[in-house]
Amino acid sequence: MSQHILVIGAGRSSTSLISYLLEHAPAGDWTVHVGDMDEALAREKCGNHPNAVPFAFNALEDDTRARHIEQADFVISMLPARFHHLVVRDCIRFRTHVITPSYVSQDLKDMEADINAAGITVLNEMGLDPGIDHMSAMQIIDEIREAGGTMTRFESFTGGLVAPESDNNPWGYKFTWNPRNVVLAGQGGAARFIQEGQYKYIPYHELFQRVKPIEVGEHGLFEGYANRDSLGYQEVYGLQGIPTLYRGTLRKAGFSEAWNVFVRLGMTDDTYQVSGIQNMTWRDFINAFLVFAEEKTVEDKLRMRYGVSEEVLSKLAWLGLFDETPIGLNQGTPAQVLQHLLEQKWSLAPGDKDMIVMWHRFGYELDGASRERHSYMVCIGDDEHHTAMAKTVGLPVAIACRKMLEGSLTERGLLLPVVPSVYAPVLEELAALGITFTENQVL
Amino acid sequence: MSQHILVIGAGRSSTSLISYLLEHAPAGDWTVHVGDMDEALAREKCGNHPNAVPFAFNALEDDTRARHIEQADFVISMLPARFHHLVVRDCIRFRTHVITPSYVSQDLKDMEADINAAGITVLNEMGLDPGIDHMSAMQIIDEIREAGGTMTRFESFTGGLVAPESDNNPWGYKFTWNPRNVVLAGQGGAARFIQEGQYKYIPYHELFQRVKPIEVGEHGLFEGYANRDSLGYQEVYGLQGIPTLYRGTLRKAGFSEAWNVFVRLGMTDDTYQVSGIQNMTWRDFINAFLVFAEEKTVEDKLRMRYGVSEEVLSKLAWLGLFDETPIGLNQGTPAQVLQHLLEQKWSLAPGDKDMIVMWHRFGYELDGASRERHSYMVCIGDDEHHTAMAKTVGLPVAIACRKMLEGSLTERGLLLPVVPSVYAPVLEELAALGITFTENQVL
Repeated sequence: MSQHILVIGAGRSSTSLISYLLEHAPAGDWTVHVGDMDEALAREKCGNHPNAVPFAFNALEDDTRARHIEQADFVISMLPARFHHLVVRDCIRFRTHVITPSYVSQDLKDMEADINAAGITVLNEMGLDPGIDHMSAMQIIDEIREAGGTMTRFESFTGGLVAPESDNNPWGYKFTWNPRNVVLAGQGGAARFIQEGQYKYIPYHELFQRVKPIEVGEHGLFEGYANRDSLGYQEVYGLQGIPTLYRGTLRKAGFSEAWNVFVRLGMTDDTYQVSGIQNMTWRDFINAFLVFAEEKTVEDKLRMRYGVSEEVLSKLAWLGLFDETPIGLNQGTPAQVLQHLLEQKWSLAPGDKDMIVMWHRFGYELDGASRERHSYMVCIGDDEHHTAMAKTVGLPVAIACRKMLEGSLTERGLLLPVVPSVYAPVLEELAALGITFTENQVL
Repeated sequence: MSQHILVIGAGRSSTSLISYLLEHAPAGDWTVHVGDMDEALAREKCGNHPNAVPFAFNALEDDTRARHIEQADFVISMLPARFHHLVVRDCIRFRTHVITPSYVSQDLKDMEADINAAGITVLNEMGLDPGIDHMSAMQIIDEIREAGGTMTRFESFTGGLVAPESDNNPWGYKFTWNPRNVVLAGQGGAARFIQEGQYKYIPYHELFQRVKPIEVGEHGLFEGYANRDSLGYQEVYGLQGIPTLYRGTLRKAGFSEAWNVFVRLGMTDDTYQVSGIQNMTWRDFINAFLVFAEEKTVEDKLRMRYGVSEEVLSKLAWLGLFDETPIGLNQGTPAQVLQHLLEQKWSLAPGDKDMIVMWHRFGYELDGASRERHSYMVCIGDDEHHTAMAKTVGLPVAIACRKMLEGSLTERGLLLPVVPSVYAPVLEELAALGITFTENQVL
């Protein structure tokens, strides 16, 4: 009997997911229903495949959503994270399995008893980060423990970057994901981690000047800044009491020093409207965050007051921030105005390839000796649509869906992919698709 | 016939207010009802005066509040600002005048039609800052305009400080007001002002390193950091289009450079709990915000990474931040932990006197020439209870109440003290009570 998969959301991160499902649909006798607010987008992602049913879908309308979930055998929710609980509530009601690539929310945790009672699987954090990071890290942590080792250090960094062959700007960066999230990255609380047994806190305004240099095999030098909350991973990974636990975000070396200018000046603030923006040039905009000093140029103020190097100044100049060009907006917060500029400069051009880099460092004690292993994965996109981001977010979801429909993944309840029964088959299939990790025993 | 004044709240800022009302109560045949959650506090402030009625009062209980307001001829609300709207709603219902020392809220603005229909006076921003700042500034702005001048600059700074005779610590600062507000000062948005026709924005983390030096007559050198929103004063003072508008907070010279260490390190953050605080010393606490570097001392990290001077280090050392002394708290945000330390070091001792300093700078064009006037007020407290803060917050409220009961202040509606009919009589009486402004024509 044909099985019906409902994919909610056909945006950027659903491209590889839908392709994978459609590729396996004939063999599995699946019908893949792809619903999106934008019907054209759903159609485009389905490309006339005979097993695909694209349709216009407002997942926030309760009746519509319930009706479609009732008719499905399996649901994949690619909605923004804050809406998953609506989908999960219906999945409980109609006893349908569901996968999301997002962090498990408190709303979902509160439904755990109902999820168990319904006997369904609600598998979250099944994308890239969270997702592949969990699976690749836990596989090695479990290996180390099985061999009798004790974890002393776990550091993990992931970045969505531009591939070397498409990297043609001085920032070494292009938007491969939601630009707004990039501009606001790091806001909303201090970064918290543990280093050699000491709790450490970095406020947002210091984040980009406290980066760690990270060498990723033959791929060269990157740098990592700390994510908001590394402390929570003690519980998720069973690493309570570990002396060093640090998670972060990767950028090409040199990016953070330049980005730090925006942070220090307050140009990433999203809490108030800039006054008089309609009459401002880009040069006026950056000057609004600098001291008043009539006799000094904007460049000199940056050099003298903030110690900005000529190299960083040239990155700012490349963006056009010193130009007497009108901004072309009538309103906006500093963050929105900055995003407006960056979108003109950092967008992927036709044919541009993105690149995902993930790097783990495992320190442990084994047989009385200190040991260290590194593990990394680099994935390059095909083009500006079939991005490495879309593959690494969408494929784990798709693979888990297939394994469940085929009956080889049978865990039930509110799950994260930190258990071998989930991560082992998914990592194996990811490797077959070219998403592989390279390991080094360093110590 | 005896008139009944209801004073809601007998806290620190009500001391001088209640004394003033009781002093004039026999002549006016007033009964002053002083209600506070803490009946003992209300009694203490009334000191057995025959015209006083202290009582226990929970102003947040609707029925109790309505009953007391119904029986009053005049209400003074010294509640936290967010509760004034409850009082004002009852005052509309029972057609009773009311004064508050707080910023007029949107809740109150929304009631303006009802206030007008009731024919009552709701006078807000009648304390020190807002209050005396409005009155003293508007008196001079109105003078300049009447003489045919055009305002080109308005700068205004106010600080609650410690008097020179009680200033015996290296910070030149003690708490004369809510310590929590001092620790969090400047948070919650960038400071916004206009300088020479340019909008300027300072993010919180830069606020204490962009201070202005301010010489206040014979009282010496102070420094001012920008308040959150100076732009709103364009409308309040009728200064639309003014090229320079800047409001700020005063500290003794040198304070901000040292406070800036806390801001840069993230030690004033109030958004998360510090982990493991129960096992930390003060030295561990500051170290949690510094980079991990086993071979370096906390002091060296501050010197080398943040360029902290020996003078600032000695201020931090005086607070005990480098001591191996247990913190003595089981939980707390960084801001709460810091406040816990500062309260042990910066509290007023018996007999200590506080000091209010207010300083205005008025730039204007008159007869084709650029002119400039300065005006300042310094008020010293009597002791740690009868503070300059209590006088300058409470007396304007009390004076306005007296003028209204005597019939010499007859404005009605939702008022701020920016009109001559309000500010002129109040400033005159404040001067008689020793709260006077000194003026200099500088240019």
